[in-house]
Amino acid sequence: MNAEIIAVGSELLTPTKLDTNSLWLTDQLNTLGIEVVQKTIVGDERARLAAVISGALERSDLVLITGGLGPTEDDVTRDAVCLALGRCQQFRQELCDQIAARFARIKRPMAEINKRQAFLIDGAEALPNERGTAPGQWLAVGAKAIALLPGPPGELKGLWAAEVLRRVTAMVPPLHIATAHFRVAGMGESDLDALIAPAYTRYTNPVTTILAAPGDVHIHLRARCAEQAEAEALVTELGAQVRELLGDRIYSEDGADLETVAGRLLRARGESLSVAESMTGGMLGQRITSVPNSSDYFRGGFLTYTNEMKHSLLGVPEAMLAQYTAVSEQVAIAMAQGARERTRSTWALSVTGYAGPAGENVGNVYLGIASPTMAEARHIQFGFDRNRIRNMSATTALDWLRKHLK
Amino acid sequence: MNAEIIAVGSELLTPTKLDTNSLWLTDQLNTLGIEVVQKTIVGDERARLAAVISGALERSDLVLITGGLGPTEDDVTRDAVCLALGRCQQFRQELCDQIAARFARIKRPMAEINKRQAFLIDGAEALPNERGTAPGQWLAVGAKAIALLPGPPGELKGLWAAEVLRRVTAMVPPLHIATAHFRVAGMGESDLDALIAPAYTRYTNPVTTILAAPGDVHIHLRARCAEQAEAEALVTELGAQVRELLGDRIYSEDGADLETVAGRLLRARGESLSVAESMTGGMLGQRITSVPNSSDYFRGGFLTYTNEMKHSLLGVPEAMLAQYTAVSEQVAIAMAQGARERTRSTWALSVTGYAGPAGENVGNVYLGIASPTMAEARHIQFGFDRNRIRNMSATTALDWLRKHLK
Repeated sequence: MNAEIIAVGSELLTPTKLDTNSLWLTDQLNTLGIEVVQKTIVGDERARLAAVISGALERSDLVLITGGLGPTEDDVTRDAVCLALGRCQQFRQELCDQIAARFARIKRPMAEINKRQAFLIDGAEALPNERGTAPGQWLAVGAKAIALLPGPPGELKGLWAAEVLRRVTAMVPPLHIATAHFRVAGMGESDLDALIAPAYTRYTNPVTTILAAPGDVHIHLRARCAEQAEAEALVTELGAQVRELLGDRIYSEDGADLETVAGRLLRARGESLSVAESMTGGMLGQRITSVPNSSDYFRGGFLTYTNEMKHSLLGVPEAMLAQYTAVSEQVAIAMAQGARERTRSTWALSVTGYAGPAGENVGNVYLGIASPTMAEARHIQFGFDRNRIRNMSATTALDWLRKHLK
Repeated sequence: MNAEIIAVGSELLTPTKLDTNSLWLTDQLNTLGIEVVQKTIVGDERARLAAVISGALERSDLVLITGGLGPTEDDVTRDAVCLALGRCQQFRQELCDQIAARFARIKRPMAEINKRQAFLIDGAEALPNERGTAPGQWLAVGAKAIALLPGPPGELKGLWAAEVLRRVTAMVPPLHIATAHFRVAGMGESDLDALIAPAYTRYTNPVTTILAAPGDVHIHLRARCAEQAEAEALVTELGAQVRELLGDRIYSEDGADLETVAGRLLRARGESLSVAESMTGGMLGQRITSVPNSSDYFRGGFLTYTNEMKHSLLGVPEAMLAQYTAVSEQVAIAMAQGARERTRSTWALSVTGYAGPAGENVGNVYLGIASPTMAEARHIQFGFDRNRIRNMSATTALDWLRKHLK
């Protein structure tokens, strides 16, 4: 079974706005075994939109239209569907009452203009929208169907879950899904792909999707079978091979991010953490504290952006800074030790390096780690982009801590 | 003049990939006065793509197709254009030689399969691609035109600049452009719009675009006229009204971000900055140091995530913490003063608050600022989303510093 998605709105044809709803809808559809074969983005123009809808309905079994259900003259989705199908729409008092009730709940007056949202296309079912004023509509056209859905993502998702999902599910044979979500730090996408491709390319089910952010690769496995046990067995089988090939480079098997995983390990051990940051300037601390309840294990840290601060705040000896420079193994270790002593944390991480903009040492980074029983430094050479160097440094430091905690 | 963009590639119909090339192309086209009226995303399917191309060429003056120019069987854009137009394509030895030369330059062997990229559609001009193996193609069809462009963004942009821009420019009357880019912190998009709409809605030229990130709103003005002086006069005229309405809420008139603007002011005054962060955990420092050469004015900071750290690292009196709690005006001021004294910076900013996840005080934030002559605190109540509270706190602190520095 095939589907198409039509995103309606002139703002989606400007240089700054993308139709992101379609990604979420595609994921929902793929989960049901439905493939998206075409996506169209069109402005608030009745005739053009009607032509797009006609074409989509000719080609595909299911047409999802997002946006254009608002109360203004610009909102032409209802009219365009009527035009495409040669149907009329009628004012429905019960829809108008629902819209009025919603305005009453949020204690705002309902404008006359909102009555436009109470028109229902002949033959359509109204889909109540708990999160907004625009009801959706579901329209069976022979064995095919069109859904009119609101554009705001929160409304779209709510309405999908409450009303659309079961209608779409009824159109396809039942499928059971099993998934796995691995995450790997410290490996490029192409290296990782080269390593695991021999395993996953032998399977068309599960489908493997590899998605990369700098220093952080996501591996999604998704099996679809007639039986749940069969889907789970397939994911387990391929998952075991992926685990075998990647070993402890996998930091997460449930999609949790690196700071969350490191935090879980610290909490489980009843241990604490502090940081000493030069080049990253707070990025490492910011990531650690992005995790709710990170105050359970994060004590604090030092941003020491100058040699003087490394000395006065962390106690790095002036002679060491003079002899080895601030970007050195020695200073990385002294920074971590200084942070650990001053915060009385179990662990401390440090970052010192050159993020640019200029100079031959750009990308030259030392990480330090200290615990009650050890202190080590690690040298890494990154590329030349300031933001990337900082991000990769923070990621590598967190992954290094994770490996020490395991 | 109207244009359509067609993005080709089955990966663009998955739940994880968006066609972002079209945003960049839309910006380029709008600059020339060309409006994008429809965008289509279609997989690597010859017949489907051919139908999309036929439809686009019927509706629009210019059709830009991105992707599908690679060497494999999956790459069907050339074939689909031939199918749509009823034209043939021919192998061109000179194109093949160019592709071979490129492989020679990067010292890799050219595969036999790459010869597929040396086929030119009858009547098309080949567009050399300096950054990849796939040449583009430009095809005039009566007064209309189709451009076949590579999908990788770097190749697309290079080829656009070198080959396509002048061909498209020749299709439209000459226009001169003037722009302004204001940024405003600490105001929601709808409040800002309500304030300046009476001014900008009186102009259709310049076009005004308002774009919002949390706590940070961009206002773009773009005038297009037959004469440069006329375009600049229009932007100056509307810009003056926007400036009058927003006053010192405008922090940037050249698009620079808040941390860059605050940094410029510090550098100009020869002054320095430190931070003391609780709830933001490094986010403020990370933003300040995201600016190249921020070491000219940023000295360092303290991440004090616990009461104990606020006391031991910043010298906040234990009695004060006990009496007022860590989230108070008194502690915000003491944190800023503590950071300033310990780093000997001119200015210090502090943030303390509750970012959640739970509790009735979530979103309750105090900011502190200290200089040689003053220390103040400011209370703000934000919403309930952890990440948003942290981001808005950092933004508000930076904007507060900016206002003090002006």
